[in-house]
Amino acid sequence: MNYTVMSHDELVSEKSKLEENYKNILNEKLSLDMSRGKPEKLQLELSEQMLTAISKNDECFTENGTDCRNYGLVDGIEEAKKLFGDILGISPDKIVVGGNSSLNLMYDQVVRCMLYGVSKNSTPWVKNKKNKFLCPVPGYDRHFGICESLGIEMINIPMTKTGPDMDEVEKWVKDPDVRGIWCVPKYSNPEGITYSDETVRRFARLSPAASDFRIFWDNAYCIHDLYDDKSSDILNIIDECEKAGNPDLPYVFASTSKISYPGSGVSIIASSLANISYIKSIMQYQTIGHDKMNMLRHVKYFGSADGLREYMKKHAAILRPKFEMVENILDEELTSCGIAEWTKPLGGYFISLNVYPGCAKRTVKLCADAGVKLTEAGATFPYGKDPKDTNIRIAPSYPPIKELEKAMHVLCLCVKLAAVEKLLEK
Amino acid sequence: MNYTVMSHDELVSEKSKLEENYKNILNEKLSLDMSRGKPEKLQLELSEQMLTAISKNDECFTENGTDCRNYGLVDGIEEAKKLFGDILGISPDKIVVGGNSSLNLMYDQVVRCMLYGVSKNSTPWVKNKKNKFLCPVPGYDRHFGICESLGIEMINIPMTKTGPDMDEVEKWVKDPDVRGIWCVPKYSNPEGITYSDETVRRFARLSPAASDFRIFWDNAYCIHDLYDDKSSDILNIIDECEKAGNPDLPYVFASTSKISYPGSGVSIIASSLANISYIKSIMQYQTIGHDKMNMLRHVKYFGSADGLREYMKKHAAILRPKFEMVENILDEELTSCGIAEWTKPLGGYFISLNVYPGCAKRTVKLCADAGVKLTEAGATFPYGKDPKDTNIRIAPSYPPIKELEKAMHVLCLCVKLAAVEKLLEK
Repeated sequence: MNYTVMSHDELVSEKSKLEENYKNILNEKLSLDMSRGKPEKLQLELSEQMLTAISKNDECFTENGTDCRNYGLVDGIEEAKKLFGDILGISPDKIVVGGNSSLNLMYDQVVRCMLYGVSKNSTPWVKNKKNKFLCPVPGYDRHFGICESLGIEMINIPMTKTGPDMDEVEKWVKDPDVRGIWCVPKYSNPEGITYSDETVRRFARLSPAASDFRIFWDNAYCIHDLYDDKSSDILNIIDECEKAGNPDLPYVFASTSKISYPGSGVSIIASSLANISYIKSIMQYQTIGHDKMNMLRHVKYFGSADGLREYMKKHAAILRPKFEMVENILDEELTSCGIAEWTKPLGGYFISLNVYPGCAKRTVKLCADAGVKLTEAGATFPYGKDPKDTNIRIAPSYPPIKELEKAMHVLCLCVKLAAVEKLLEK
Repeated sequence: MNYTVMSHDELVSEKSKLEENYKNILNEKLSLDMSRGKPEKLQLELSEQMLTAISKNDECFTENGTDCRNYGLVDGIEEAKKLFGDILGISPDKIVVGGNSSLNLMYDQVVRCMLYGVSKNSTPWVKNKKNKFLCPVPGYDRHFGICESLGIEMINIPMTKTGPDMDEVEKWVKDPDVRGIWCVPKYSNPEGITYSDETVRRFARLSPAASDFRIFWDNAYCIHDLYDDKSSDILNIIDECEKAGNPDLPYVFASTSKISYPGSGVSIIASSLANISYIKSIMQYQTIGHDKMNMLRHVKYFGSADGLREYMKKHAAILRPKFEMVENILDEELTSCGIAEWTKPLGGYFISLNVYPGCAKRTVKLCADAGVKLTEAGATFPYGKDPKDTNIRIAPSYPPIKELEKAMHVLCLCVKLAAVEKLLEK
């Protein structure tokens, strides 16, 4: 059954079988969506009681008496800093709490670097002839979008099982035009890889040619574990950078998008005291303060870091069966074909599927035509260009499990059909 | 009692009387704050029922079924666009709904102009040797802060009773480096002046040398009337610019900061279809969407533009007595002295007080030393430099009325004392 060793005739016969199945699926006129890492309805419903966590006038105040309804606190309420700080192991004074989206904080941080530089006496990036970012691939399309939008050149860095290829990273930071790197250190998007301690330490010890090089550490899935073990804990990049004498190197991002609501969450940026102080000195021109009521609502509802960790188990209970089903279907339907490989993450929101080289676009197209929407092929690479046209990001969270099962069978069929077509071209 | 015609001896005697009173006030060890245009507690309490406007899972959806808890809608929910659109007389498709603060939208819009230009083929402002903004004075310090922070040179434009001096505006827009102007067209900050129809039409007919010149129309007080009449209605800048063949000239901003909560409101930017389409094409890199739950909460609570206008009467009922008291105290205590003049706004959040030339800083200092905090003198001018050192912004909203009364008596005393000091210098 291994396609790669099949004879021409065997492939032709397999193809016609697959095409027959595909035709039957077309007749089902499906409409299934595995394209984005969106929580499903059941997950959103978990936070119902947060809606009324503040329901009276006298509940609108912080512990120290700040009225969250009124102006003020550009860096957010203390309780929210503490809650995030406890989760991430970061001191509250190194945290600024933002609005709904950590993407917004990331974009705004790159913009600040562009227009003001990373610190008071550094050169705004717009003044440089060239700015480059390192992009571990496959990675998160919206990170790449920020760079592309702002004219920052992107350089692919291969991912390994323990994080980005640090030999490559260490080589590239010698280029004085390289000013940043995007990292999703825990349950990376899309592979679900968690950076090893050694990887984190090598990041902390980087000695970039550009003094204004920064690590954009998007800890989007910091407590988004599918299983109740500590095997995916990561080292604290802020602590490690301090120890290595590089305190200003990292910008850390996190949010409650996949904890409470993607449409109404709370986000943070954390960094060294010096960086945070500089960020606040600029942010004060942008806003008098982000939504403090929503910060307070989150704090009141989740209570503590422990409360939050406990709460995340409810998400895991919904997500885990989906991940396991996806993996089982991939195992059953594709293992023997020898044309694809995939990751088995312990958390996060994605499974990364590498199909037969040159077949990702075709596979996604076949799925789309059959009513199964996937993340666009290539999206996991800068400029949307997957050099081997092989990577597909599977987002199992959004469809109800029955739909997901159906969608996965369609995907597997399309993976096989595209591979057979490609093999027959040879 | 007119200080300006008093003899030296009369001034000396008046001064010692005032100093005696001032000493008594020092002994009271006051702590009063008239520094910012913050709503007071009673105003914040008006919106209590908005807190529970969404309290169940099945209430989280827009009319067309969008789940506001989840990702999506970079330009906001349709209902919120319609609500703002109805208030401002702007078609919903010309509106993007943002997060908590319109200041944030204004800053971000200037940033977009800096980094991307005003449209696809225009030059990013960062590429220009020089960028200048026209700043009607006195004006809003946070507008000026954005320009100063981003290195945009500011040019003072005098205010008249009908808005900015349009002769000056028309003259200055011939300078090809002039790319924008800050306007608060209704109940201007701090004078409470409402632009006349002729002023708005002259804005719409501007023919700037810079094709990327834009009007930043901060309609912060669009429905913030103190009295129930239509005398302060302004022309619709978007309509007028369209009629004048300049549809892309204005960016309009508004928010619920002083309707619901400054700490948890909803804001909008509105403009031509072309501008809005370009803004969205960039904003999509910054966020997947602003807080939709808070948009929905506002829509559910306020219902309609009429509901909102009715609701604003509750704010007016709290604010009106404060404005009238401030004006009465100024009338009683200062009119006869001939050393000051002030505005009597029909809405908005401020009263503008011009003290004896060269005395604003001294007056504010005297007040501060007596425990009455005012907006810093000079803050109403670019770079904090009031050329005549005469303007003081009075913000009557925040202190409870009893405290406000006390603070105003202190202020009047300090206005007089500073004036007498100055007159004795001559």
